Formats: sequence, structure tokens, C-alpha cells
Amino acid sequence: MNMPVTEDQAAEIAAQRAIERPTRRTVSPALEERLYRPVPVLDRGFIRVVDYMGDDSAIVQAARVSYGRGTKSVRDDAGLIGYLMRHRHSTPFEMCEIKYHVKLPIFVARQWIRHRTANVNEYSARYSILDREFYVPEPDQLSAQSAGNRQGRGEALEGDEARWVLDTLRRDAETAYDHYEAMLNEGEGADPGRRGLARELARMNLPLNVYTQWYWKIDLHNLFHFLALRGDAGAQYEIRAYAEAMLKTVRAWAPLAYDAFVENRLGGAELTAGQLAVVRRMIAGEEVTRGTSGLSKRVWDELQAALAG
Amino acid sequence: MNMPVTEDQAAEIAAQRAIERPTRRTVSPALEERLYRPVPVLDRGFIRVVDYMGDDSAIVQAARVSYGRGTKSVRDDAGLIGYLMRHRHSTPFEMCEIKYHVKLPIFVARQWIRHRTANVNEYSARYSILDREFYVPEPDQLSAQSAGNRQGRGEALEGDEARWVLDTLRRDAETAYDHYEAMLNEGEGADPGRRGLARELARMNLPLNVYTQWYWKIDLHNLFHFLALRGDAGAQYEIRAYAEAMLKTVRAWAPLAYDAFVENRLGGAELTAGQLAVVRRMIAGEEVTRGTSGLSKRVWDELQAALAG
Amino acid sequence: MNMPVTEDQAAEIAAQRAIERPTRRTVSPALEERLYRPVPVLDRGFIRVVDYMGDDSAIVQAARVSYGRGTKSVRDDAGLIGYLMRHRHSTPFEMCEIKYHVKLPIFVARQWIRHRTANVNEYSARYSILDREFYVPEPDQLSAQSAGNRQGRGEALEGDEARWVLDTLRRDAETAYDHYEAMLNEGEGADPGRRGLARELARMNLPLNVYTQWYWKIDLHNLFHFLALRGDAGAQYEIRAYAEAMLKTVRAWAPLAYDAFVENRLGGAELTAGQLAVVRRMIAGEEVTRGTSGLSKRVWDELQAALAG
Amino acid sequence: MNMPVTEDQAAEIAAQRAIERPTRRTVSPALEERLYRPVPVLDRGFIRVVDYMGDDSAIVQAARVSYGRGTKSVRDDAGLIGYLMRHRHSTPFEMCEIKYHVKLPIFVARQWIRHRTANVNEYSARYSILDREFYVPEPDQLSAQSAGNRQGRGEALEGDEARWVLDTLRRDAETAYDHYEAMLNEGEGADPGRRGLARELARMNLPLNVYTQWYWKIDLHNLFHFLALRGDAGAQYEIRAYAEAMLKTVRAWAPLAYDAFVENRLGGAELTAGQLAVVRRMIAGEEVTRGTSGLSKRVWDELQAALAG
Repeated sequence: MNMPVTEDQAAEIAAQRAIERPTRRTVSPALEERLYRPVPVLDRGFIRVVDYMGDDSAIVQAARVSYGRGTKSVRDDAGLIGYLMRHRHSTPFEMCEIKYHVKLPIFVARQWIRHRTANVNEYSARYSILDREFYVPEPDQLSAQSAGNRQGRGEALEGDEARWVLDTLRRDAETAYDHYEAMLNEGEGADPGRRGLARELARMNLPLNVYTQWYWKIDLHNLFHFLALRGDAGAQYEIRAYAEAMLKTVRAWAPLAYDAFVENRLGGAELTAGQLAVVRRMIAGEEVTRGTSGLSKRVWDELQAALAG
Repeated sequence: MNMPVTEDQAAEIAAQRAIERPTRRTVSPALEERLYRPVPVLDRGFIRVVDYMGDDSAIVQAARVSYGRGTKSVRDDAGLIGYLMRHRHSTPFEMCEIKYHVKLPIFVARQWIRHRTANVNEYSARYSILDREFYVPEPDQLSAQSAGNRQGRGEALEGDEARWVLDTLRRDAETAYDHYEAMLNEGEGADPGRRGLARELARMNLPLNVYTQWYWKIDLHNLFHFLALRGDAGAQYEIRAYAEAMLKTVRAWAPLAYDAFVENRLGGAELTAGQLAVVRRMIAGEEVTRGTSGLSKRVWDELQAALAG
Repeated sequence: MNMPVTEDQAAEIAAQRAIERPTRRTVSPALEERLYRPVPVLDRGFIRVVDYMGDDSAIVQAARVSYGRGTKSVRDDAGLIGYLMRHRHSTPFEMCEIKYHVKLPIFVARQWIRHRTANVNEYSARYSILDREFYVPEPDQLSAQSAGNRQGRGEALEGDEARWVLDTLRRDAETAYDHYEAMLNEGEGADPGRRGLARELARMNLPLNVYTQWYWKIDLHNLFHFLALRGDAGAQYEIRAYAEAMLKTVRAWAPLAYDAFVENRLGGAELTAGQLAVVRRMIAGEEVTRGTSGLSKRVWDELQAALAG
Repeated sequence: MNMPVTEDQAAEIAAQRAIERPTRRTVSPALEERLYRPVPVLDRGFIRVVDYMGDDSAIVQAARVSYGRGTKSVRDDAGLIGYLMRHRHSTPFEMCEIKYHVKLPIFVARQWIRHRTANVNEYSARYSILDREFYVPEPDQLSAQSAGNRQGRGEALEGDEARWVLDTLRRDAETAYDHYEAMLNEGEGADPGRRGLARELARMNLPLNVYTQWYWKIDLHNLFHFLALRGDAGAQYEIRAYAEAMLKTVRAWAPLAYDAFVENRLGGAELTAGQLAVVRRMIAGEEVTRGTSGLSKRVWDELQAALAG
């Protein structure tokens, strides 16, 4: 079981949660309920919301400022937020901001950081010593390379092969960490006869599945962009697990924006001009095949997937 | 007729175009042909390409670095670029960069500058004096407010009303400019008995249809985003005119990316989950009406528009 | 006197301020005290803080996460924040976010928007009708063009010239607005025999000193960058007036960061290699003149200004 | 010796360099000379310029557009570029763009990517297999942790300790890579009885000193920001080695901007208000000590360092 925080951290979180003070700002009661609490992700990771600004009402307020009397025709907030999402009027969503504390393996952090429109403060292994914590997949996620799809996973490995992979991941990580500690030669048990390697150098011996931590702050528009890409079926399982945990926090925080996101992005589809033309023929009753569609195999398959739902 | 540049500028452009030098960089012959030449837009504006970097081959090269052997299955460049566009793999398009010199009315510049992912150097009316040049719409663009759509235009005004509007726009602009010049009290004809108002203050008397100029540099991914929003039927005509002129330069520069953009963005459609569900029922032969669709009127109308093509 | 808000707005602000709810987030009591209240700027403008996230403690928390045990040597928060500011460790400051509602003339808005690292929702004159409100300078700000400095102002105009400028600014603005209203032909007093020009077109008749409004959200690092540039003596008076009003809100919100900003940016100076060399010679007791300094006149003058304090 | 590219790559580079075509764009002959050629960095890394746009003349052109007649008083290009740099007028520098191909260890890539204002396409270990290449420091860079400075290095390790660290880094990397290959179970020598782990999972066994590659594109203003931070004495040696190699390409490309950068950033200093006050007292002939300076020890030491040059 993932017990993501230490006893010290649990005490700190309890202390953070114990203090309530009055504010004149917008308050999201459902997010207050979750504030500071870690949500376990993977075997030793977590996300937790540590601050936020605005909620659905901030989106509506910004849109009504921008579009003024023009928004009167969209009478309710849900309709207005759906309209903004459909027409990619992104600036009202930027008025909401959220800050997470995340613990994640470095290979996941490397994918994550490619999203440039966020603010980040990461635990620095130049200044500090990383803990002995590594990600090792659950057996059902220990997948073979997909034969058909270069970016996907196939079936899970089994038996001896699975056992060997898991043992090797664990053993190599432990060995690398033992040597990291020996290179550092710091703290209790340090050898006074050796000087110890600089932290910024010793870390290079650690594997990509070692855990790191960061504070990550982003506005809701860019968070939706992140969640659409990283919560997608084509994303690697390990980062998707984080996206899914974060998506639940968005549902608590800004439920109307969440609904619009699910309706328009997660559940919707973008069709090309050629795919739209095929859909029109199908609706007119024509029996269209891959051969008569005029689409490439890949584009045809993507249309089938969209229509299958 | 729009003669967008002065004689001096025409001479400078001819001089720029006369020099050719060897380079080892990627060269786009079709864009070289257009380089520096102003393309008229509106009554006195223009765009012209003054520099560029990369073309379709830079997109393909970047994608093949990222996806490595995984891209071998997409054999030709057009297929690969279409795939990247469909799946919003935007970073390869960011490897191309283009720089425009643009002359445009200030109210258009105010919409334009909302796109934050570009580099801009604008002619400064703090330091320099703006020319006596104003945008006045062609009669067929002198539109009434749309009754049904707050953000659209209705039919063109006619007769006396049209004449009065055009006369007033011209007259108010001329008066404002006369007073701007008198406030500045600079150059030939200046009154030595007066000191003249600071340029940074005098400019506030000018109307929003006065022309300004800037250099504007952007990567191809963000340019497509700009062109999708500003080339859309919902955009104001005056900025759309610029988007359309720029779109032609993209076709010359990166024809495969241009085709993918037209196929996927301009000619395609994003359907919501609810709209997709209706499409499935229609393809299955069901006669779906607004009433049985479960969609709001607005979402239903947008689906009809997408299916009408 | 600037009474920046209407009676309706004053009632809305009172209502916003009346509600207090409990939160577990960081609370800045001094900023809560000011929340929603408009601070007058120029003759009819204002700024008001409408939301915020974090304060000094969020900066410290982010820095201690990043630098871990390395920050123990900087024991107090003020010292740590000063260290971060001096060494341009900007990411901890990005963990604080603030949202303003601003009413400002369009020529000021055009300078302001050049800062691209903020979120903006502006009142749209495509969708809505702008109010009859214009900026007209106070007599002591009605400055002549500086003779020596292209970007500065000289002495204030006086007597007849000042009167004529103020009268003309007012009269041209009123005329332009009268015609704007007549072109729109909406609301009470509209002529049913005319259709009225589209709002998105009619606005082009308005001058650059008409007031607009927006919501503007930015993180503290980028706000400091904005305030350093726009609060500088070289900035135009009209935008500096906004920067100064905002600076006071930062002092209330994050006093340690404010102090570090004043000490390091506003009160400090950047010296070039050549200027540093001159300073070293001066400290060694040498009498250095412009002639023996090896500096250009401009760089020499800037050094004198920095040393004069 | 670092032979950074394979024979195949060398042939490709020769082919790229062999083609020259005419262009009307700005051409930097000194950068053309270096174009595509890898410059070795660390033991197996490199940088090479693969494209560029603009040079010093583009900066000057943009500044003269912005400041118009106001720039006439700064007559020569070097003086104008120095002025822009000193006064942080950054937009003209943004008109130049450069694209590098970089091969670098992952722990360096993690520091590098924190600069968000660039475009990146990295070799993907989800899609492709990483090569067996690791960074191992030269003996003179195998430094002990600094005692006084958490972020610096002390003296190099020596003798048995140095040997043990180098051996361990090499051995752990080789073991990790052997197991990576065995987990993948692809290509020649693959065991047909096993399926092989997905690439996106197997990579997590690799250490942080494994080499990766990317295309990285950035404008000159943001490149200078990167080079100021990563070329600083406080930066980790391994990333500084890249910054220094890139700095030489900037000198070839935009020599006036390079000189201004060295004069103003690399060789200059930012003084706080308190430091400036001490400098004034010193110039006035006062003997100021740490005790009478009113500065903290850290700020005093930084002033001494700035004055020592």
C-alpha cells in the first residue's frame, strides 16, 4: 500500500489543515475539504492541492467583463462555460490558478516539464540528498512493447520474465543508491578518511525511476491542456495516473468547467475535412468503406474509433 | 487603390531584394520570391515577409528526432505532417519561424497583440510622429450591427446613412490629426512662440483607426493558432483580411503544413460528446431532430453548421 | 476629484466585501483589508485587487523545497528572500499570484499589454458599448516635449497654449463620442429610420484616451518585472501612476518581497564592466574624469546618476 | 578524445555543409562557416548550430522601427545595441533566432529544460532505444562537496577514492545498460522465448548520466538570459561547459550583441541600494569595514567580490 508521506509530513499536514482563517476571496468548499491532503499515485508518489485561486465563478465573471452585454443571451453559467470551451475562448479559464505538491519518478517528471506554461520549484539534488525511493511497476503494468503501436504497451509480461524484470529494477536501483550514498560519504556512518563526492555529481549515478518532488502551479486553461494530453489513452500509464488524480481535484474545484472539459475535450472528437465529408455521406445513407472513403488507412481508423465512442 | 508604401520605401525594398548571398540553411524558393514585397491589406495597410527560418523539412526533421524509429511507419512527409497536426504534436511546427512587417490600424493591432507567443517591435508614438493615415472601410464593409449575433455584422449600410458614416469617420480623423500636429508644433510651419506638447501626450488625441506598424515574429505552431482564430468567420473582417494575406505566405513557405492545417483546422470540426452521439444515431439511420437530440439550441445549430460544410 | 466607480459598482463592491468565509489557505490580512476597494489613478481610472494567492510565506516555502538543506544557512525569511532576489532565483516568486481589476486609458493599455506574461480579460468594444470617459491630463502633467531626451517630458505648458490643448483634447473627445453614439444608433433616442453601424466598426472613431477596463492576473516575479520597467523614471507618467498604486498593494501583500525589490531593483543599480572599473579607480583614490574614464558620454552620465543616488 | 558523432553522422554533416543556395535573407558568414559542425562538449556530448535567423543588423533594424527618430542620437550600431542591453530593452534581441542540435547527459538536460522560453524536440526513449553512452567526469572535475558552499564544489578527489568513484560510475552505468538491453530483448541476439519490456518502461533502469539529444531553438534575448545563468561561476560545471561552447557561436553570429552582453552582463554587476551607499562612502574617501557598512556578511562579501573584479 502506498503510504505516501512520512510521520513528520503527516503531522505537518494535520497542522496545515487545522488552521482556518476568514477571507473575502472566492472559496471552494469542496476543495478546502481536500486541501493539503495527499492523494496516493503509483507505488510511492502523491499529488496534493496546496493552494488555489478562483473557481467557476471567476471564469463567468471574466467572460462577462470581456463580452459584456453580449453574454446576456447565454443566461446560465453552465451554458456560458460550455460556450467558452467549445469556441476556445481560453482567457476566462486563465483566471483560475491551482498549486500542487507532487511526488513523482524522474522519468515522469521529464515528460511533465515539457509543459512550459506552469511555475515549478523542484527539490534540488545539487543542494540536498534524494531519498531511497524508486518506482517499480505493479505486475499488471509490466507490459511488453506493443507490436502494432510504437508508442503503446502490449500485454503484461508473466512468470519468470516478469519476476526477472521486477527483481532487476529493484536490485539495480538499490545498488545505484548504495553507491550514491557511499560517494556522498555524509552523515552517520561517514568515513572520516574520505572527503565525499559533491552532491551535484553523485546524483548522476541514480536511475530514472528515483522519486523527486516539486511544487507546480498552473492556470486552469493550461491545466486542461495538460490533462487532455496526459490523461489521453495514448499517454504513458505512469503520467496518466497523475492526470487522473488531478482531474478529480478539478471536479471538486470547478465542477462546471470540469463538465465542459469532459463534454468537449475528453468525450469529443476533432474531425478532419475528409472525415467530415465521409460522415455526411454516411448520414445521407451511403455505405462508405475504407476503399470508397478517400481516407488513408490511419485516418479511416481514427474516424472509426471516434464513431465507436 | 492601396499603394501601401512610399517611394522611399519602394526603393529600399528593391535594394533589399537585389542582394542574394549563398547560405547553407534551408531555403524556401517560393518565399524568397515574395521576400520583402508588401501585400496590400485594407485601404492603406500591408504585410510583408522580411525573414524566415526552416520550412516543411524542418518539421519533418524535428519529428523524426523526437519519435525516432517510431516514425518509420509513416513513410512520407505529407502523412507525417498530417499525423502531427491531427494529434496536436505541436513542437515540430515550432521549429519554423517567420517575421512579418505589418502596417495596420490600431484597433486591429489591439486584437492582434492578445496573442502573446510572438515577438513584437512596434513603431513608438512616444518617440516618433505617426503619419496622417487612417482606415476607412469600403462601402461593402460598412455593416450594420447584426441583430441575432452580438459579435457579427449584418447587412451593409446604404445611401445617406452610409455616406454620413464615411464622411464622419474621415472628418473626425482629419480634425484629430490636425490638432495632433498643432499640439506637437514641430517641424516646418511650427510656431516658435509655442513649445509644443510632448509626443507621448499628443498621440492620445488620435482615433483608433490611425495606422501603426510593427515587426512581428512567430513560430509556425503559434502562427497557425493565430490564423485559426483570426481567419475564422467569427473574427472581425478587418483582422481576417490580414490573416488571409498571411495564410498565402504560409502556403508558399511550407505547403505540406499548410495543407494539413486546411484539412484539419480550417476544414475540420470539433464535435462534443453530445454531438458525436447524435451523429452516431444519424448514421444508424435514425431521424434526429433538435427536440430528440438532447442538445441545446446553440449546440444543435453548431452541429448543423458543421454537417452542412 | 476622481470618483472612479458608479453607485451601482460601489454597491457591488460593498456586497463583495461584506462576505467573509473560512479558508485553510494562506491569508494576507493587510490585503484582505484592501480587497475589492478601488484606488483612484489619473482622472477617472482605478486599480483594485480582486483576488490573490500566497504571500511571503509561499516564496519561502518554495525556496526551501528547491534548495532543501542548503537554505538552512540563511536562517531568516527576510535574508532568504533578499538572497533569492539578488541572485535572480525567480521561481519562488512565481508561486504568488494576484489579480487586479483596472480602468485605464487605451494608450496606457497599449503599453501595458506588451508584458506578455500575464492573463487578461478586457472589456470588449466589439460586444459592448464603451462609456463616455476620457483621460485629460492635469495641468501640471501637460508637458512640453523634452529637448534633450526624446522619450522624456519637459516643463509643463502654460497659459493660452495649455488652455488650448486641454480644450481641444476635451472637445475632440466629446465630438468623437457624439458621433460614435450616432453611428451606433442604439438605445433610448435611437432613430428607427436608421440601422446603426456595427459596434466593432463604430469604435474606430474613438480617441486613444478613451477609458477601457480589464481583469489582469500575474505572478509576483513578473509583476516585479512590470513594476521595475513601468515604475521607472523613464516610463511615461500615466502608466507610472498605475505602477505606483500597485506597488502599494504589493507592500501590503508581501512586505518582505517588497523590501527586497526596493533594496535590489528600485534602489540598486546595474553597472557595466567599464563602470565597475571606474568605480574601482575612484575607490583607490584616483580622480577620474569623463575624459580619463574611457566611457562614452552616455555611459559616464549614467554612472554619475547611479552614484548620486 | 571526444569524437562526438558517428561515421554516418559525419557523412550527413558533410552533405549538409556541401549545399549552398542563394538567399535574400540576412546572412552571417562567420556562422555559415560553423553551420552543422559539432563542437565537442564533455566526454561524449556536442552542440552544433543547425539554423539561424537575423544577426546584429536585425536588432538594429527592430530598434530603429520602435524608437524611430529617437534613435538618431545614438549614431552607431554598437552604441545603440549597448544602450538597448543596458536599459533592458529586450524586444529587439528577440528578432534573432538560433537552433542548436545538442547531445547532453540527462541530468544536464533536466537543468536546461527549466528555461521555458525555447522550443524543444528531444529524442524519445518511449519510441526509440537510447545508445550506450554515459557521461563520466574527467578526474579534475571529480570534486568533493564544498564545505562552505552548499551549491559549489571543493577540491578534486584523489587517489583511491577518485578511482573508486570513476570505476563505480562506469560499472553501474554498464550494468544498468546491460539490463536495459536485456529487458528490451530486441534486435540481434533477442531471445525469441521472451516478449521484451516496453521501451517506455525499460528506460527507467538507466542512470541520469546517460546521454540524450535534442533540437533546441531560442531567440537571442532568451539565449542571453540562459547564458548569463548557466555560464555563471555558480552554475554546475557540466552545464557551464555547454554555455561556454554556445557563447562562442553567439560571438561569431552577432558580435556587437555579444560584446554588449559581456560588457553589461558577464563583466558587470548589480549593486543593491545598501551596496551603492557603501560605494559612495568609499569614493568619498571613507574607510568602510564590514562592521560599519551596515551590510550583512553575505551582502558585504558579494560587494567585495564585485569590486575585486
